[in-house]
Amino acid sequence: MVTLASDPDPVFDFCIPTTISETTCKNSSLATVEDFVFSGIKHPGKFTETGFASIPVNVKVFPGLNTLGMSLARADFEVGGVNVPHFHPRATEVAYVLEGKIYSGFVDTQNKIFAKVIERGEVMVFPRGLVHFQMNVGDSRATILGSFDSENPGLMKIPSAVFGSEIKEELLEKAFGLSSEEIAKLRKKLTPH
Amino acid sequence: MVTLASDPDPVFDFCIPTTISETTCKNSSLATVEDFVFSGIKHPGKFTETGFASIPVNVKVFPGLNTLGMSLARADFEVGGVNVPHFHPRATEVAYVLEGKIYSGFVDTQNKIFAKVIERGEVMVFPRGLVHFQMNVGDSRATILGSFDSENPGLMKIPSAVFGSEIKEELLEKAFGLSSEEIAKLRKKLTPH
Amino acid sequence: MVTLASDPDPVFDFCIPTTISETTCKNSSLATVEDFVFSGIKHPGKFTETGFASIPVNVKVFPGLNTLGMSLARADFEVGGVNVPHFHPRATEVAYVLEGKIYSGFVDTQNKIFAKVIERGEVMVFPRGLVHFQMNVGDSRATILGSFDSENPGLMKIPSAVFGSEIKEELLEKAFGLSSEEIAKLRKKLTPH
Amino acid sequence: MVTLASDPDPVFDFCIPTTISETTCKNSSLATVEDFVFSGIKHPGKFTETGFASIPVNVKVFPGLNTLGMSLARADFEVGGVNVPHFHPRATEVAYVLEGKIYSGFVDTQNKIFAKVIERGEVMVFPRGLVHFQMNVGDSRATILGSFDSENPGLMKIPSAVFGSEIKEELLEKAFGLSSEEIAKLRKKLTPH
Amino acid sequence: MVTLASDPDPVFDFCIPTTISETTCKNSSLATVEDFVFSGIKHPGKFTETGFASIPVNVKVFPGLNTLGMSLARADFEVGGVNVPHFHPRATEVAYVLEGKIYSGFVDTQNKIFAKVIERGEVMVFPRGLVHFQMNVGDSRATILGSFDSENPGLMKIPSAVFGSEIKEELLEKAFGLSSEEIAKLRKKLTPH
Amino acid sequence: MVTLASDPDPVFDFCIPTTISETTCKNSSLATVEDFVFSGIKHPGKFTETGFASIPVNVKVFPGLNTLGMSLARADFEVGGVNVPHFHPRATEVAYVLEGKIYSGFVDTQNKIFAKVIERGEVMVFPRGLVHFQMNVGDSRATILGSFDSENPGLMKIPSAVFGSEIKEELLEKAFGLSSEEIAKLRKKLTPH
Repeated sequence: MVTLASDPDPVFDFCIPTTISETTCKNSSLATVEDFVFSGIKHPGKFTETGFASIPVNVKVFPGLNTLGMSLARADFEVGGVNVPHFHPRATEVAYVLEGKIYSGFVDTQNKIFAKVIERGEVMVFPRGLVHFQMNVGDSRATILGSFDSENPGLMKIPSAVFGSEIKEELLEKAFGLSSEEIAKLRKKLTPH
Repeated sequence: MVTLASDPDPVFDFCIPTTISETTCKNSSLATVEDFVFSGIKHPGKFTETGFASIPVNVKVFPGLNTLGMSLARADFEVGGVNVPHFHPRATEVAYVLEGKIYSGFVDTQNKIFAKVIERGEVMVFPRGLVHFQMNVGDSRATILGSFDSENPGLMKIPSAVFGSEIKEELLEKAFGLSSEEIAKLRKKLTPH
Repeated sequence: MVTLASDPDPVFDFCIPTTISETTCKNSSLATVEDFVFSGIKHPGKFTETGFASIPVNVKVFPGLNTLGMSLARADFEVGGVNVPHFHPRATEVAYVLEGKIYSGFVDTQNKIFAKVIERGEVMVFPRGLVHFQMNVGDSRATILGSFDSENPGLMKIPSAVFGSEIKEELLEKAFGLSSEEIAKLRKKLTPH
Repeated sequence: MVTLASDPDPVFDFCIPTTISETTCKNSSLATVEDFVFSGIKHPGKFTETGFASIPVNVKVFPGLNTLGMSLARADFEVGGVNVPHFHPRATEVAYVLEGKIYSGFVDTQNKIFAKVIERGEVMVFPRGLVHFQMNVGDSRATILGSFDSENPGLMKIPSAVFGSEIKEELLEKAFGLSSEEIAKLRKKLTPH
Repeated sequence: MVTLASDPDPVFDFCIPTTISETTCKNSSLATVEDFVFSGIKHPGKFTETGFASIPVNVKVFPGLNTLGMSLARADFEVGGVNVPHFHPRATEVAYVLEGKIYSGFVDTQNKIFAKVIERGEVMVFPRGLVHFQMNVGDSRATILGSFDSENPGLMKIPSAVFGSEIKEELLEKAFGLSSEEIAKLRKKLTPH
Repeated sequence: MVTLASDPDPVFDFCIPTTISETTCKNSSLATVEDFVFSGIKHPGKFTETGFASIPVNVKVFPGLNTLGMSLARADFEVGGVNVPHFHPRATEVAYVLEGKIYSGFVDTQNKIFAKVIERGEVMVFPRGLVHFQMNVGDSRATILGSFDSENPGLMKIPSAVFGSEIKEELLEKAFGLSSEEIAKLRKKLTPH
């Protein structure tokens, strides 16, 4: 992991982290073209129970992105598969549909929803930090390529962040108007194993 | 084509918006000290059903903050009152306890919780864009002063953003593992009137 | 005097320009999901003489990107087609190969080249402001999707910028070590019509 | 002290400096809630001769602020106590009156003063980099909580910076129209011991 | 509400303000080379009583600098002439000596002075927001060219900002340890007419 | 070389890199005025075959600029000397004519040229990332002082970047409409030795 990056005004052409210390750049004469190419999203990632698979391509897996202020993700959906409501604390996302029909949307800070079904070749933008979500509503696999304006956009999945993170039960009961039993059920389901 | 361009940093001492047009600054010689003083948080705001009252002091209510990159909020809690899980898409928050004992915390993007009870005179920082929450666990009213590094940090309250914004029901059922009836109940409670 | 000032970061969820004035945002309650979806890159653009077609998807054609700091481009290559050496003054580019085999590379400020053939599903990053180029070296059409961390990255194509822009002939002769006749020939070919 | 921070676009949720090296972040799984809470401003700091006591809460004393772009300060005033004209080179300040009546103001780059008496519960903003000052004009102790949009805003106190820093005497005589004796007297008083 | 939003970085090649409205850019096809050339610092400005003359070349006098993030100033010194202690709230300054011998320096936020005599062809950098000053210690005219990383760096001259801006007398007496008479004398001298 | 800088929002007054490790700042109490003064551009650099000599004064040669966001360059021209078409990926440049008559210009992303002859005491601004060029059209030596809003602006000289960097020959033939022989000739001339 790299600890020395700075968005959005780098002072170098690029800065490939050294293997000895994460806080220094490899001498630029030692960089090779392989540092700037990533081949790990030719195929889908591992599918979860919600029929969803994603591969983040951020600076942790593609160190060449360090200080360059961008990253990617590949997301695959089985029929009916769901990308749960989530947000990226540090980036806008531009999503391009590689394959399929996706119900896709976001909610703004006025609680207004913007959602529709988008298809292969269409693009939707999710403004920085807003909650968004997707579901494959077609009858075959669907795939999306997401781009971000941060080399490490971060990801907060609402279900597990809220119900799977040990927030005091009483607080959640009041916040969602749920009973102790209902919260317990949600916690059990949504705590990552 | 859009023509709103800017230097990366502010280029004026300040910029009080004119009343005629929101896109121009008042001539600086017409600004007065009253433009830079705000008196509207001497008392609590209106309490909600969760025993919580907040007054945001952003650029919309305090125009003198325009281009200055900061804002405030006052939050009051009845005994047991709850500030529901929420986040600010555009700011870090530094919260200072003016009065009372508050269970206060946040969740990071690894789903790890950082929470404890803080008291009068103590400070907690909520990193930019992370979900955080508070509950008055003392036996008297509690008050917090929050500061933000944006003149308009934005606010997404998770319960109403997720369950009160008309996200497709099937998606929510799958995302939270809830039945159609459970989602309907949550929607009814959490949709803003 | 100029009055276009700004917070260092965006201060709204989004800002769809109004049709009446380009310098104000549409009231956010009037924004619709169509403002955030773009459908114009399902098919290739118009091919040039070098067997290359590109469609920039920046804020000029997709106003929903305004203030969101990102944009896209679709690029198609006939067999042997060339994307001439060029750069984007205001953005890093992440290029994803949708189809085909592309010789793809960039030159850094030490004059060092980083180039190789990349294939469907592979990604290459071109650091902000560096000269880069591509050529379809496969035996069928190729397509690339580029993402940028600016809503208006800009594009300078080296051949036409240098030889098609009326820079004083004597300067070009000395800079490239070419004769007056050679410069004239290049100018004739490379001046946009 | 931390030497590896970057305002305003961090690439991590947070970055608690390690104790071994100031230039790396603690592994985020080792961070605890105590890293994000500060308890050192429950009581006033040490009062100076001008009846003023301040406690800066910047990244040096509260390392959890590292890369988060914010900090605080507590300032206490005896009756008649003075916070001398000063400025913060790297931040806007929002000051909230916790207790008392404070004459508070700033001067802009046109030499125009903006000053008035503010009271408990009122807020005044001092735009980034402008000279400001305060004096307790009430008949009891006064306290202010200042917030800044930098984790290390810096502080230049005009009296000691100008007369207590060994600027060539002749230059100061000409700049302020003072005699050699007058400058000597000011230097003696205003040089920090 | 304020609608002046922006990408963190400029989004155009340039933006020459229109004469009709200061908040829009001239159509770029109407810009001419004259918009990017400034000829007004071939000669010194008007000398003040301290033997100093300066011509700021910021965006107000050179509109072509708009959104480009840079500006200049020419400063001329008679023998013994003084540029009084001052600072620029929004920029670092790099000063190049065109002619003469200049005692030149700055004070950091630890109250430490960095000063020496610099000569024709030498360069000194004054970090963003720190108090700096200059005096011609040679036996002939001296001239400096300053560059700034802001199109409108701002200027606060300490003597007039502090003693010429109607800060409450009692506050200044306590801040500088001066008598009422001494403050009155300074005010009389240092208030701009 | 320094690897720890961050434009444009430093969190220190300054940060002189240590000699032991490039990623930490020297303790500020050890900094001296010599760290902030540069004396290496009193005389021209070494002239090239095109009658041009330049000395970049960036953070690599003047470490005091680290984190301060600015740098300089001195450029000298023999009669007829040429500064070949080039650009700086990370900065706007403001050029001041110290001596002589210079044909000076830039090309924008619409391929429009802005060029004219400027003289001693005149200033021209080259917007961030755009291709620009200069030629001494007077009958004596000419000198320019360039300032940049980055401590390491970078430099790409078009002739050597394009023809001297081993870009695949076939690509260059197609991009410029040149024969294999013509490309070979350009390569031979323009590859740095």
